Amino acid sequence: MSSGIDRNKPGKMVIHHFLLGPFPARVRIALYEKGLYDLVEFKEINIFKGEQKTEEFLTTKNYSGTVPVLELADGSIISESAAITQYIDNLDGNSYLTGVTAFEQGRIHMMNRQVENEFLIPIATYFHHGTEGLGEVESFQIKEWGMKNKEKGIKGIYYLNKLLQTQPYIAGEKFTMADITAIGGILFCNIVKILIPEDCQAFKDWYNRVNEKESVKLYFKQFAIDSANSA
Amino acid sequence: MSSGIDRNKPGKMVIHHFLLGPFPARVRIALYEKGLYDLVEFKEINIFKGEQKTEEFLTTKNYSGTVPVLELADGSIISESAAITQYIDNLDGNSYLTGVTAFEQGRIHMMNRQVENEFLIPIATYFHHGTEGLGEVESFQIKEWGMKNKEKGIKGIYYLNKLLQTQPYIAGEKFTMADITAIGGILFCNIVKILIPEDCQAFKDWYNRVNEKESVKLYFKQFAIDSANSA
Repeated sequence: MSSGIDRNKPGKMVIHHFLLGPFPARVRIALYEKGLYDLVEFKEINIFKGEQKTEEFLTTKNYSGTVPVLELADGSIISESAAITQYIDNLDGNSYLTGVTAFEQGRIHMMNRQVENEFLIPIATYFHHGTEGLGEVESFQIKEWGMKNKEKGIKGIYYLNKLLQTQPYIAGEKFTMADITAIGGILFCNIVKILIPEDCQAFKDWYNRVNEKESVKLYFKQFAIDSANSA
Repeated sequence: MSSGIDRNKPGKMVIHHFLLGPFPARVRIALYEKGLYDLVEFKEINIFKGEQKTEEFLTTKNYSGTVPVLELADGSIISESAAITQYIDNLDGNSYLTGVTAFEQGRIHMMNRQVENEFLIPIATYFHHGTEGLGEVESFQIKEWGMKNKEKGIKGIYYLNKLLQTQPYIAGEKFTMADITAIGGILFCNIVKILIPEDCQAFKDWYNRVNEKESVKLYFKQFAIDSANSA
């Protein structure tokens, strides 16, 4: 793929996403955090209509059939929320969301994956298998698998709650990608109507804390505007 | 956790692992690649005996109950193969396995996750759900979920095969973490007796190519010695 642009100073970017999706939300919060939101044009992919599963999308955008997908001006693709976050966080040489030192990087990547594997993905799996999910787009569902994952995801909240009793943010002292991923988990809980358990006070306190972040405020503000416009 | 060591120049490290496991193999190959193998002491966790699921392991090593887990001299923990790789690759300031520029990092993390999500994890899920897996350690299995994942993992090989028809390595022109993860996928195929399809020649050529890497050779050589010793 030839490139007239410097991919490490990309300027205008396109993100194929779904406005209501918790995974795209992760990338939007990261973009606000890094001051890059205004460089991005968002193209809506209606995942309830299966637009992420068309032959064209699978072959030209993302084999995995998921959003968000970042597309640079020369057509280069970066899919996967964590990989997109890694990219946008490293553009300015101050990668505080994904870690600067080796140790920070290791810990943040570890915690980001724990949040994914123990909280966000189980709740997403409950949505896809244990509820109607995306409706006709769901070609294969196992109810029992969905219910097992619901249980796992809620257990994951208790794990994070325990962690947050001794540190302000999920990977330690600072707000990172792992916190953004956990916000994605809460957004997914809202969709499937799972409440944060009453006895998870440290987790609730953490959520109040991250909601004070400018990037998170901007995300929710813009989300409200975009939701109203698309309604 | 107090730290008398510089976690970014850790010296002696412990990795809790299972010799035969494809996930620990990823970290061992990365350690050879970075010339750090001799700094590590390996402690065997017998996953068929459920040693990764004991209360002590879950609370002091890894909530997710998986190996490998890296433990530094001050007791700091980094779990998750990709996070451990991120850590050891960035210790020397030349992170060619996980990417130096933002664009390289984005692409490598994307491809690493695609290999995980479309190949390695589906085959691992087939092992845990579609076969006897870890025997009595498996507390919850859904055969149908296992078989669906077997199908997905094999389809993933065809996806990677197509990719490798136009580039020598999985993330592009260079050997990276994504290739190591795919080696892990092949190791898991060996365990569950899934053969690389006859018509995936580019994938086979790629596997021959990575087997010429010094790190991969050293891994298989040491693996043979360790396997013989533990037999």
